[in-house]
Amino acid sequence: MTAGKDGLAAVIVTLMLIPQSLAYAMLAGLPPITGLYASIAPLLLYAVFGSSRTLAVGPVAVISLMTAAALEPMFPSGSAAYIGAAMLLAALSGVVLLLMAVLRLGFLANFLSHPVISGFISASGLLIALSQFKYILGVSAEGQTVLQLIPSLAQQLPFINVPTLLIGGLCLVFLQLARTRLKGLLLALGLSPGWADSLTKTGPVLTIIVSVLIVTWGDLASSGVHVVGAIPEGLPALRLPTMDWQLAMQLLPAALLISLVGFVESVSVAQTLAAKRRERIDPDQELVGLGAANIAAAVSGGFPVTGGFSRSIVNFDAGARTPMAGILTALGIALTALFFTPLFHNLPHAVLAATIIVAVLSLVDFGSLKRTWRFSKQDFIAQAATMFGVLFMGVEIGIVMGVSLSLLLFLWRTSRPHSAVVGQLPGSEHFRNIERFNVIQSDTVLSLRVDESLYFPNARYLEERIIELMVDYPDCQHLVLMCSGVNLIDASALDSLEAIAERLTAAQVQLHLSEVKGPVMDQLRRSDFLNEFGGQVFVSQYAAMQALDPASIMRAAQS
Amino acid sequence: MTAGKDGLAAVIVTLMLIPQSLAYAMLAGLPPITGLYASIAPLLLYAVFGSSRTLAVGPVAVISLMTAAALEPMFPSGSAAYIGAAMLLAALSGVVLLLMAVLRLGFLANFLSHPVISGFISASGLLIALSQFKYILGVSAEGQTVLQLIPSLAQQLPFINVPTLLIGGLCLVFLQLARTRLKGLLLALGLSPGWADSLTKTGPVLTIIVSVLIVTWGDLASSGVHVVGAIPEGLPALRLPTMDWQLAMQLLPAALLISLVGFVESVSVAQTLAAKRRERIDPDQELVGLGAANIAAAVSGGFPVTGGFSRSIVNFDAGARTPMAGILTALGIALTALFFTPLFHNLPHAVLAATIIVAVLSLVDFGSLKRTWRFSKQDFIAQAATMFGVLFMGVEIGIVMGVSLSLLLFLWRTSRPHSAVVGQLPGSEHFRNIERFNVIQSDTVLSLRVDESLYFPNARYLEERIIELMVDYPDCQHLVLMCSGVNLIDASALDSLEAIAERLTAAQVQLHLSEVKGPVMDQLRRSDFLNEFGGQVFVSQYAAMQALDPASIMRAAQS
Repeated sequence: MTAGKDGLAAVIVTLMLIPQSLAYAMLAGLPPITGLYASIAPLLLYAVFGSSRTLAVGPVAVISLMTAAALEPMFPSGSAAYIGAAMLLAALSGVVLLLMAVLRLGFLANFLSHPVISGFISASGLLIALSQFKYILGVSAEGQTVLQLIPSLAQQLPFINVPTLLIGGLCLVFLQLARTRLKGLLLALGLSPGWADSLTKTGPVLTIIVSVLIVTWGDLASSGVHVVGAIPEGLPALRLPTMDWQLAMQLLPAALLISLVGFVESVSVAQTLAAKRRERIDPDQELVGLGAANIAAAVSGGFPVTGGFSRSIVNFDAGARTPMAGILTALGIALTALFFTPLFHNLPHAVLAATIIVAVLSLVDFGSLKRTWRFSKQDFIAQAATMFGVLFMGVEIGIVMGVSLSLLLFLWRTSRPHSAVVGQLPGSEHFRNIERFNVIQSDTVLSLRVDESLYFPNARYLEERIIELMVDYPDCQHLVLMCSGVNLIDASALDSLEAIAERLTAAQVQLHLSEVKGPVMDQLRRSDFLNEFGGQVFVSQYAAMQALDPASIMRAAQS
Repeated sequence: MTAGKDGLAAVIVTLMLIPQSLAYAMLAGLPPITGLYASIAPLLLYAVFGSSRTLAVGPVAVISLMTAAALEPMFPSGSAAYIGAAMLLAALSGVVLLLMAVLRLGFLANFLSHPVISGFISASGLLIALSQFKYILGVSAEGQTVLQLIPSLAQQLPFINVPTLLIGGLCLVFLQLARTRLKGLLLALGLSPGWADSLTKTGPVLTIIVSVLIVTWGDLASSGVHVVGAIPEGLPALRLPTMDWQLAMQLLPAALLISLVGFVESVSVAQTLAAKRRERIDPDQELVGLGAANIAAAVSGGFPVTGGFSRSIVNFDAGARTPMAGILTALGIALTALFFTPLFHNLPHAVLAATIIVAVLSLVDFGSLKRTWRFSKQDFIAQAATMFGVLFMGVEIGIVMGVSLSLLLFLWRTSRPHSAVVGQLPGSEHFRNIERFNVIQSDTVLSLRVDESLYFPNARYLEERIIELMVDYPDCQHLVLMCSGVNLIDASALDSLEAIAERLTAAQVQLHLSEVKGPVMDQLRRSDFLNEFGGQVFVSQYAAMQALDPASIMRAAQS
């Protein structure tokens, strides 16, 4: 039963993966066959090492775009040097992912915040669609950014190839309708939802078959319609990528970004699907699975791969239950590479481009910019910067800008934690923020609550805050630091506390602590601070006030 | 009265600054006179723009070492190109500091954690002392790291110049004794503490006077004792540093590090001194003051400067009350440059080297390594890496290693916040960690408390944690997220919450929130989450349990 479901899922995913892998190879600037190669060995290795049962690995749009962005400035698209470099990029990406697994650096992916990823994917989608338009028009245009692509396309408008445009345009319309309307139509025609769904998924394959037939029948290749042409039959030979240390160093930054983006995309999909069946994925094991898949791509003529979103959902919905579905899919693609590549000879580039455009435009979501703006201005800045960077300065610069900005904003926020001067709530033993509550404050004892662990990003902030308070409260004789929100004190914060105690002593003020948590107390006992700071550690803020200013307690009780 | 105190402080600081500025110029690989130049205009500009009343700006050991580390691989020490590049470095550092002020990036200095700074200063001190030893021995040796310096010195041992070693060795012993014992001796001789203190501070000046007399009288320069030689008299001419865009780009990383380290050192000193008198300094204004000082150094033949530790304390102790003390000190140095440089002709390099060695060895504190180890292993790793890097791989690599490691460890820690499954404390309405307290848990309602704001570094962690919990608690029907510790939810965490709610729904579990703080609630209302997640927001965890599993409340009441 399980095997049967896995088999059905494999057939559907194979039919979906064939056009996708040919198209994404083209997007990456590589010969179409490399797309098939990248969909065989990587799937097998992921099935062995990955932790998700339903993730479908292979070429994906954004990673292919990043591959092209890294390689196109270096080599002519599709040349032997370009293919070797693409394999090297996959190898580097595999090594990076495996290293991240060994060093347990998977957490680094957390620092690609969601607004940055969403902005990156939307802008990349737009950029990819634009870059594929030349195939629909049947012209040649170059460029890595919107600013280069649009003028380049505009210049070429006089040279549009009409048969190409007709085929490409019709495919675009059909694929878009298939995606949005076909299922409803089939349901209306009385098909069962399962069949309607499966038929809809085969839209791209249908398009390919029909277009190949039309081009062959009309001999459109001689009318200037660019076709895929002869594809070598057979399985990829196992061979090493270009081994060039200097080139590897040049490609390393791109490989790092590709690894991170690929990992984040893949883990999100895998987690979503695993949770639906209350299954568990292990992010560190995912790093191993994706690393192995990329190494496999590198030694079998492929290029960087990761878990694909739409493909994995199809796999899941078609009932894939075990990694066997992935192995069967690899088998399907291998059979295609062995026997069916001649069928793709007359497949027009325009049809592959239409497949890509429809797929990526569905990823573009400018509404998210508006939602982010409403929810958080800081996140909006990071998201808008990423989009701007990707569209106008290039994919890599865009994502680096977004990540740097969100990290910078994060560091800024974390370096100024919330703290509040507190006073006693009349008729209770509670101490609350003097700015929000009507509380009783002592004249000689100042109570400061810090709502954050004390560590180096905010250590200096506390020093500054306390200096300011000393200026604002010239009559203060005791300062009680209320540590109810402090889960950790690191060495920098300990130094700061010592400096604060010393400065306060010089200004005739004594520092005390209150409500210090157990683990923090254990930690402080391993230093000399408790013996040297001269103050006391009180169980509660109330106890501190009882000891240091009983008169204020009386006032709070009376009022 | 104030003017008198400022004047006295200026005299003492001037006498201390003359040998220091000559020596630190030598350490930076520059002609001695540039040290005087760097102690005139920068002091005036800092007096105008800085916010500390007692900070004494000028050349300091660590910054001079970093200057040498940046320039020595590029140009021959002391050459015109080297001097021009040092001025350019000061200019860049000034621009970086001013930009940091404009962009309010002063908080970045927080990310140099105390263990990293302390490790950096100790290791730099050792490295500086070692690099100066060649002057004491009267030989020439080269190298940027311990691994280069020690063999280079060892090779030169046969060529030691005995008169130089005698002078240098005696100076070392005298200066060290002056630093540690002289004050006690003078007090024992019946001097007042004030006079004893002031006389002790003039030790280096005394050493210089005596050594110049000895060298002149014995004509030791002709016996191979290297002396400072002819110093041009007069004030520095105002001139622009080398304006070379490519060189500027090469020097930029060094300028960034110099700015950050200089700023951190300076702000720590300024804060310590300000707090003693309950005064306030403004870190952003300090950036402006130091930036202006470095620009001034750049256009008056100097090199990078910052606020010095020992010098500022002397200034403070001598009674400096206003920036006038700094202006008078600049005047003192200017008079020295105008009229007294011929007096330094016969000053041996060995004496300046001895001044440096005694000053920097007092900064070396290997005990701090042990204290850090006892207190926090993570901080220890960062500190040890910094020391190792500085000593064996170079100053710049060392500090970059330390900062990267401490940031990485910080990001790692912050990406896995503390969270606890909670249950009801029998006989109360409190909910506490099930691992620490004997509590009553509901069979169908799972309560998770998160002790951290929810934002992108930990958003994915929460998703993983909840997936794991769903696997561990298969009977769970409701999950209540207790948000008492959540001060903020950013867009990534909102996406995560939506994904969590969706996954839980798919697994037939309903998500709820409890104890959401006011500002967070306001924020959630600006999104669609509250309408779409399908659960409720409870005032307290107790209220949630009353609504979702009253039976469990009954059990807690009965037990």
